[in-house]
This record gives sequence, structure tokens and C-alpha cells, in this order.
Amino acid sequence: MYEPRKATTPSRHAERAAYDEKTVHEILDEALLCHVAFVANDHPQVLPMLLVRIGSTAYFHTSTGSPMARTAAKTGAVDITLEVSILDALVLARSAFHHSANYRSVIAHGEATLVRSEQAKREVLDALMEKLLPGRSGVVRPPASDELRRTAILALELTQVSAKVRTGPPADDPDDVALGCWAGLVPMSEIRLTPVPSPDLAQGIEVPSCLRADVAGD
Amino acid sequence: MYEPRKATTPSRHAERAAYDEKTVHEILDEALLCHVAFVANDHPQVLPMLLVRIGSTAYFHTSTGSPMARTAAKTGAVDITLEVSILDALVLARSAFHHSANYRSVIAHGEATLVRSEQAKREVLDALMEKLLPGRSGVVRPPASDELRRTAILALELTQVSAKVRTGPPADDPDDVALGCWAGLVPMSEIRLTPVPSPDLAQGIEVPSCLRADVAGD
Repeated sequence: MYEPRKATTPSRHAERAAYDEKTVHEILDEALLCHVAFVANDHPQVLPMLLVRIGSTAYFHTSTGSPMARTAAKTGAVDITLEVSILDALVLARSAFHHSANYRSVIAHGEATLVRSEQAKREVLDALMEKLLPGRSGVVRPPASDELRRTAILALELTQVSAKVRTGPPADDPDDVALGCWAGLVPMSEIRLTPVPSPDLAQGIEVPSCLRADVAGD
Repeated sequence: MYEPRKATTPSRHAERAAYDEKTVHEILDEALLCHVAFVANDHPQVLPMLLVRIGSTAYFHTSTGSPMARTAAKTGAVDITLEVSILDALVLARSAFHHSANYRSVIAHGEATLVRSEQAKREVLDALMEKLLPGRSGVVRPPASDELRRTAILALELTQVSAKVRTGPPADDPDDVALGCWAGLVPMSEIRLTPVPSPDLAQGIEVPSCLRADVAGD
């Protein structure tokens, strides 16, 4: 259980907030992309990043020349908010006002720090690769030391963190339920389609089995 | 063509940046969610929001009590960065280092302002509804005036805006191409599944045709 705090209590729909590790971790583990906010030149910034969680730490990587990496290198840490959202359904109510979305989101605040050791960087990048595609980290050429030096990995300890989840049907006003308009959910899903080999792939190299198993929606 | 500026020139992979209206607008029009960064209590914040574009303005809505809406109400505007990203494919290279993602993203900076008139608010909410589901705004109960008063709509003029797009196969180092590892793309797609009627939906109300047409991946 993560401790609820002022910064992690939603200003609206606080009943949708969740702080248990299972809920928070499952959302972070399902989402490939996170969105990381930081302040640069006194302005708010936000960038999409590939995300991986290990234990109660969220990791993302960037180039060593990025503003976040440079701030962390100079001052030891960079103040960020990391957000993940998964859209599960459009919620179609009878009234325009009660239209909504079913979603699962996580927001985490804190000071992100650079992962310094080569071994720790390798572990994070392997975990990210395994998240994208189980088994992949064992078959590719591992990062060379100079490639690792050009990669900045930022770590955010999950302490100020909460999930927010909406599920279920539309919540129409009682007076609207009798309207003749269709109401319900339009579920949404992100799927993986048939792999496309690289044009320079040698003959006879088969699609890895982990990828074939992934092709569910095609 | 949006004018390239210092704030909209990527620090990495500047060759992936695009400033033409067609590219920028198509990404904003396809993505349902945007991620809006702002500063509150001296910390960077980011929230997911439903997004609609009209002309060269991006709109999102929130409750009137949200930090962004309150700042805009008090000072006339709130400094934000709005970001949208669509994940098109995982890019699987022979080397761990060159693994990547094909994506289309938009980042826009500026001062968001409140939409004040009831008529203008109605137009934005109708456009948002039509984006979610064409034809829907004509069949639902329109917002009552008090519902509109409880809804804050923020507008961001697209002036400091750029798209960033990666397409194509993995970019392996020449020495890695001969490795025996599969390389290529795993395309990804967000699809809509079979609509689920609300439990309190009256008998005989059919799923709207616009929804039936949407069911492509089920």
C-alpha cells in the first residue's frame, strides 16, 4: 500500500483513487508509454517515454543531452511528475454532460535520479526489453559500454503515487434514463498486429515465437 | 505551416520534426487523449484529458475547480504544454541499443485560456462528442446551462507547435545486420470492440449505426 498524500489525492472523483501496489503496478506494467512532466526554462514540459517498473521504482531512458538528464546530472535529481493512462472504454451516456471514459491511470511525483552504474543500466534496459517482448533481451546484441554511456536512465522511486480508475456503465441522471438514446460502453483495446520483417532481414530467419503468440487481434 | 521555433525544435532527432498543418492536425484529430503539463505549487504536473481540435486551436475540458481552470480564471491564462502521442509500432533491431518505437506525437506550448461564452462552450463540446462518435451530439440530451457552468473548457492556440514522427524499419548498425536475430516492426493499433449496453437500457434501443460501423477489430 502506498501512503495517500495531499499531492496524490485527486481534486475530483477522489473515490476513483487507489493506492494499493497491485493496482498501481499492474497499470505501470501494462502501459508501454508514460508521459513525464518537468520544468525547463520556467515552463512546464511533457515528453512521452518508454517505461518499465522494477519493484517500486519506475524507470525511463533518454539521451544524455536531454534537459531532464542534464538537470539530473548537474543537480543530482530532477523534479518530475510521471503519468500513465490506459483508455479502456468510451462511456456513452444519454446526456452530453455525463459522457466519460473508462480509464486506468497512475500519477507519480518526485525527484528522479540518474542510474549510474553500467550493471544497473543493463538491468533496467533488459527489463524494458523483456516488457516489450518476453525473451527478446536474450537474443539481441547487448548494449556496448559506449552505447550505455550515451543512454541516460532516470529512476523515480514510487512514494508519492496513486492510481485513478473509472469502470462501469454511464452514470446518467435519473431523469435522463428514460430518453430513447442508446447508452453504454464502447470498449477499446491496443493490439499488436502481424510483425513486418525488416527489408534487410536474411532469408530463413523466422518470426520469434513470442511474437507469434502476441498476434491476437489480427 | 506552423513556424518552427526554438521551443519546438527537438533536442534529439530534429529530422523527425514536422511543422505542416496536415501532419500536426491529423495526429491531434486521431488521438482521443492528450497529456497536459502545467506548474502547480512550483512542481510540474501532468494530467490526461480528452482533446478536440477546431481550426488551429486545441481544446480540453476539466472541472471549474481544477488547478488549471482556477489559475486561468484568476490570471486570465495558464502556461501549459500539451502533448499527444500515438504508438504505431515497436521497432525491433538486432542490437538492444537500436530498439525503438514508431510513433506520431505533437507537442504544443502556450498560454491556455478559458472559453467563456455558453455558445462557444457548446460548440467545443459538440465537436468533442462528434470526434468520439460521429452523429452522437445530435441524439443526446444537450448540456443544460448549469452543467456548462460547472465545465471549464480551456483553449490553446496552436502557435508553438510541432509534430515528431518516426516511421520505417529498424536502423541497425551495419556490423549488426548479419546477426541471426529477427528484426522488424510489430505494428500496434487501438481498436474499438463490441459496444456493451448500459444495464438500465430499455429494450428495443438498437446500437447506433455509427457504432456498428466502428466495430472493425472484433
